[in-house]
Amino acid sequence: MSSPTPIHPPQRFLFGPGPTQIDDRVYEAMSRPIVGHLDAYFLQLNEEIQQMLRVVFGTENKLTFVISGTGSGGMETAISNFVEAGSKVGVLANGYFCDRMTEMAKRQGADVVRLEKAWGEVFSDDEAAEFIARERPRTVMYVHAETSTGAMQKGKAICAAAHQVDALVIADVVTSLGAMPVQVDETGIDVAYSCTQKGLSCPPGLAPITVSPRAAERMNARTQPNRSWYFDLKLLNDYYNLSHRYHHTASISLFYALHEALALILEEGVQNRWERHSRCHAEFVKGIEALGLHMLVAKPEHRVVNLNTPCVPEGVDETKVRKTLLNEHGIEIMGGFGPLAGKIFRIGVMGPLATEAHVAKFLQRFGETLKGS
Amino acid sequence: MSSPTPIHPPQRFLFGPGPTQIDDRVYEAMSRPIVGHLDAYFLQLNEEIQQMLRVVFGTENKLTFVISGTGSGGMETAISNFVEAGSKVGVLANGYFCDRMTEMAKRQGADVVRLEKAWGEVFSDDEAAEFIARERPRTVMYVHAETSTGAMQKGKAICAAAHQVDALVIADVVTSLGAMPVQVDETGIDVAYSCTQKGLSCPPGLAPITVSPRAAERMNARTQPNRSWYFDLKLLNDYYNLSHRYHHTASISLFYALHEALALILEEGVQNRWERHSRCHAEFVKGIEALGLHMLVAKPEHRVVNLNTPCVPEGVDETKVRKTLLNEHGIEIMGGFGPLAGKIFRIGVMGPLATEAHVAKFLQRFGETLKGS
Repeated sequence: MSSPTPIHPPQRFLFGPGPTQIDDRVYEAMSRPIVGHLDAYFLQLNEEIQQMLRVVFGTENKLTFVISGTGSGGMETAISNFVEAGSKVGVLANGYFCDRMTEMAKRQGADVVRLEKAWGEVFSDDEAAEFIARERPRTVMYVHAETSTGAMQKGKAICAAAHQVDALVIADVVTSLGAMPVQVDETGIDVAYSCTQKGLSCPPGLAPITVSPRAAERMNARTQPNRSWYFDLKLLNDYYNLSHRYHHTASISLFYALHEALALILEEGVQNRWERHSRCHAEFVKGIEALGLHMLVAKPEHRVVNLNTPCVPEGVDETKVRKTLLNEHGIEIMGGFGPLAGKIFRIGVMGPLATEAHVAKFLQRFGETLKGS
Repeated sequence: MSSPTPIHPPQRFLFGPGPTQIDDRVYEAMSRPIVGHLDAYFLQLNEEIQQMLRVVFGTENKLTFVISGTGSGGMETAISNFVEAGSKVGVLANGYFCDRMTEMAKRQGADVVRLEKAWGEVFSDDEAAEFIARERPRTVMYVHAETSTGAMQKGKAICAAAHQVDALVIADVVTSLGAMPVQVDETGIDVAYSCTQKGLSCPPGLAPITVSPRAAERMNARTQPNRSWYFDLKLLNDYYNLSHRYHHTASISLFYALHEALALILEEGVQNRWERHSRCHAEFVKGIEALGLHMLVAKPEHRVVNLNTPCVPEGVDETKVRKTLLNEHGIEIMGGFGPLAGKIFRIGVMGPLATEAHVAKFLQRFGETLKGS
C-alpha cells in the first residue's frame, strides 16, 4: 500500500449541524497522557463529569453519565433499556431522528404507534396529549431539537400526558444539550440522551445520558435483560458509580475532552451560554432574511436556536453552494435530506462560532456564494 | 458544585493489560482539529485505516473497518450480526472474555453450548475439533489472547472443524492485534474484532473488525434485522464503504489517533513489531523466573506474549504490591479476577514499553516491591 497521509487536516469552519468547532483547551485536554480506566484519577474525573452534566441537563438525577459511543449509541442505550419486546411505544414523528427512534424500537420488538407531522412542523400540546391519552403507550419518545429540520419540540405537555398513563418519556436532546435549555427535571423527561459534538463543543464519540428515578425503577424491575450488553445501564451504573467493577474500557481521552468542554461551559455559565446562542441565532436569522431567504420553521419560537434551516431559494443549486463554501472558504454547512433534500440548508451556529463576528463573517461569505451560484 | 479539576493526569507507566502507553505522535495526531464525518478528508483517512488494518489483521477481507465503540462494542458487533436468535453457538470457554461472549450470545437469544477448561488452560486441536463435530453449531467463538489469564488459543484447527460443519468462526483478538500475529486469512477466521488500547498502542474508544466474504454472505442473507441498529454492519458498510450515507458521526479524533498508531506500526513493520514483543516477553519471563515467580500458563507456546500472568508468590499481598507500584512509581499493573483473583498479576509489556530497557526497569521496581511487601 502507499504511504498513509500524515494527519494534517484542512482548516474547517464547522457551521454544519455537528461536529462543530472546538476550543483549543478541549484539544489540549484530550491529548494528555491517559491513565487506566480504573485509576482513581479517572474515577474522579468521571464523578466531576457527572456533576457538570447534571447542571447542563438541568437535573438532579443520580443516574447521569456517559456512554462510550456516539449520540446514536445514546439513542440505542435509551431504547434498549426502556423499550421492551412486545411493549407499546408512542413516537411523535416529525423528522429523521424520530424515524430512527422508530426503527430502533421496532428492532427491540416493540409495537410502535406514531403520530406524524410533516418534517419541520411541531406538535401542539393538545395534539400530543390527545395521542398519548388515546394510545396509552408504555413509553413515549420525541426529539427536542430535530437535526434534520431545525424544529424544536416542547416537552412539558408530552411528559404530563405520558405520566397520566404511567408511560416513561424518552427525549432526544442530541442537538440542544449545551446550547439551549433542556431542563430535564422541570420538563418531566424520564430519559434524555445527547452527543458531545454539537451543543457541548467537544469531539464526537461519547453520549451523555440521564435517567429519572422512576425510569431507574422500571429498569430495575425488568425481568428480561437488555438484549444489549454493551449499552446495559445496570452494568454501566455498577462500573461508573457502584462497585467500579470493570465493564468496558472507557474512552479515557474523550472523557478528558468532555471534562474540559463542560468546565468551559460552566465557566461561561449555562444561562449566559444559552443567551449567547439565542442572540447569535437572532442575528443569523436577521441576516439570512436580509439576503431574501425564508426559514423552514415558520414560527420563531419553534426554531432550534443553534441549528438554522433556511430554505434554498428558487433556482439555487444547494450542492454547488455547499461545495464552494467548503472548497473556497473551508466552511462546512449541510443540506437537507429525506423529504427536505435540496430544499434547505442546515447551518449550525454554536460553540466557539456562536459570536456576532463569526455570524457576520459567515453571512458575508454565504451571501457572496449565493450570488455567485 | 466545586471547581472541576483541570486535566493534569498523574504520570503513569501502563504495564497493565490495557490501556497501554501511547506514543506522543499518536497524541499529537489526535489533537488536530476535526473535520466533518462526511468530509472527503475523513473518508480518505478512513480508507487508509482500512488498508492498514488489513495488514495488521493479516487479511484481504474487504469488510475491514472500525466500530465507534470500545473492544466490548466490537464483541457485541460480531455477536449481534452473526448470532441469530434460536441458533446454536459453540463457545470454547477458558476465561472471562469467553464468559462475556456467552452472555452476549444468550442475550441475542442463542442456544449456547460450551466446552470448558480451567482459566489459564487452552484447548488442544483434537478437543476443539471433537466438540465442534459433535455439537455442529452454527457459529463457533473463541478468544485468541485471553486477557483474564494470559493464555493464547490457537485457531487453525478450530476454524477447520467449524468450516467442516458450515459454522462461522468469531475470534476475539482484542489483546493480540498489533502485538502478535493474528493472521485472519491463514487461520481461517471469519470474524475478528479488537480494540485500540492494547496491541495497537492507541487510546481506547474504537473497535477494529474484519469480516470474511462467507460471513458477509451469511450477514446479507439474514431475514431478521440485527437487533442493534448502532452495530449493524450492513448499515456501517454502507456509510464507510458504499454510499457514504450518514449512519452515525464517527469519532473523528480517535480515527486520527488510530491512523497514526497504525502508521507507526507499519513504519516499524508488523514482523519486526511481533518479534520485538516476543523478545521482550522472553526477557520478562526470564527476569520474573529469576525473581522466583512461576508463570500461570505453564507452556511457553501457550502464552500471550504481550500480557504476562505470573502467579502471586505464597505470602505476598498482591493488592499491596499493585498499590505500592502505582503510588510510588506510577506503574500500573493489574491483578487477577474471578477464579484467579489474588492468584496472578497481569502485566502487559507492549507498544512503547516493549523495550529491553523498560522491561529491565520494570523488573527492578517489581522485584524491590515484592521484597518490601
